[in-house]
Amino acid sequence: MTAFNSRLKSLCDNRESWLCVGLDMNPEAFGSNDLANLKDHTFNVIDATRDLAVAYKPNFAFFERWGAAGFAWLEETAMYIGDDYIKIADAKRGDIGNTAIQYADSIFGHFGFDCVTLSPYMGRDSIDPFLHDPEKGVFILCRTSNPSAEDFQNILSDDSKLFEKVAMWANGLNDKNNVGLVVGATAPEELTRIREISPDLSMLIPGVGAQGGDLEHSVKVGNQSGAALINISRGISFAGDMSEKAIRSAAEEYVNKMRNCII
Amino acid sequence: MTAFNSRLKSLCDNRESWLCVGLDMNPEAFGSNDLANLKDHTFNVIDATRDLAVAYKPNFAFFERWGAAGFAWLEETAMYIGDDYIKIADAKRGDIGNTAIQYADSIFGHFGFDCVTLSPYMGRDSIDPFLHDPEKGVFILCRTSNPSAEDFQNILSDDSKLFEKVAMWANGLNDKNNVGLVVGATAPEELTRIREISPDLSMLIPGVGAQGGDLEHSVKVGNQSGAALINISRGISFAGDMSEKAIRSAAEEYVNKMRNCII
Repeated sequence: MTAFNSRLKSLCDNRESWLCVGLDMNPEAFGSNDLANLKDHTFNVIDATRDLAVAYKPNFAFFERWGAAGFAWLEETAMYIGDDYIKIADAKRGDIGNTAIQYADSIFGHFGFDCVTLSPYMGRDSIDPFLHDPEKGVFILCRTSNPSAEDFQNILSDDSKLFEKVAMWANGLNDKNNVGLVVGATAPEELTRIREISPDLSMLIPGVGAQGGDLEHSVKVGNQSGAALINISRGISFAGDMSEKAIRSAAEEYVNKMRNCII
Repeated sequence: MTAFNSRLKSLCDNRESWLCVGLDMNPEAFGSNDLANLKDHTFNVIDATRDLAVAYKPNFAFFERWGAAGFAWLEETAMYIGDDYIKIADAKRGDIGNTAIQYADSIFGHFGFDCVTLSPYMGRDSIDPFLHDPEKGVFILCRTSNPSAEDFQNILSDDSKLFEKVAMWANGLNDKNNVGLVVGATAPEELTRIREISPDLSMLIPGVGAQGGDLEHSVKVGNQSGAALINISRGISFAGDMSEKAIRSAAEEYVNKMRNCII
């Protein structure tokens, strides 16, 4: 049995890739509201990037907006990705223990994801039910990539900011080596600081691409220790004319940039 | 067009009830894993409490664990509740703007809920997309009811605790009179403080019942201004022998207690 963080690091090392392909299947970006076409496109994105990606990250919002039909599509998508990749449920859940147990059942049990993004706001009870199985992991929101991340995450108390407290606290949850952090590429100084505080935790780094974050800094600093996945969503799924060729080419360009930074 | 907070207050005043029935349809508590039976029970709970409840709050986790079939059941449940009640999506979402737009579409558009619970951790961008329509509301997690709520929510900075900052900040989002806060009945001092800080915001108060929070204090203080819903989940849905009579009787007892506190 390999703990989640070890498996992630091995996959990155073996494939020489740190690419997580975000599946934010936005009908507006796709230019069609036809669910069957969007589903086909999702599978095309996966097939076009299989030899480049380490992880796929379906963003639940884009599936949930279609209700039951969207969740059927999410079930198919998780199956289609298969077991050779880290399947990340980008769900940003966070609820009391009794409810968190249900979400863990849903995400790890029903859908078969390997890990999930979680919010820290409700504290330890809301995370614990996801940590029992060392093979299943969590990425806890630490310093997010959006402009208003600073509203609360950068509040200073006792010489440390909230995101720093979250990182320190997450270290204490990592007994089974299955805890990671979400750290936005748009906040490079914070990313450096978080890697110092939490050298052993995995990182999931969004914000490169459409949000304008710094790829080179993120890959280098994130992978100084542990493993850091760089997520690209719109920059791959809706690249160029959205053909498999255009998608593959965009993914390849990102992976080459990562390799140039690290290898 | 009536703003969300005004509609909620009118409903509570007219019905002389502050009861929100939480639909946490736990198969373990129900004693059966049969989805058809659980669905029937959900409808029974709703029917048994129609003349007592102001709001119903399906907890998404308990539906999501069944995947697409659970979301079909959630669609039916939202329809079954109908338009005479506040339909609260207990989803605790929180994501970047681009994704929050999709969640708003899902919850208000696809499922037809009136309001949603949200996490504040990612700041204003993650809330704004839910605020455009004054008839649709949000309840932002402020001081939650669970034991580990204090991990972050009670952190002190510049003479105010994080939950106090969230309450002050939420006041600034309430231009359209459609913002509320989630405040646990298990934290009575914090509840009093939040009502002082945010006299105009609605409150959704979980933690009475199975979690042991203080009903009398919550109803009285919460309703000093604005409107405060008291959520009861397990204490109603799985009361006694789970017959409609037992459910109705439990709900009636809670509403009578509330009336004794306020009227």
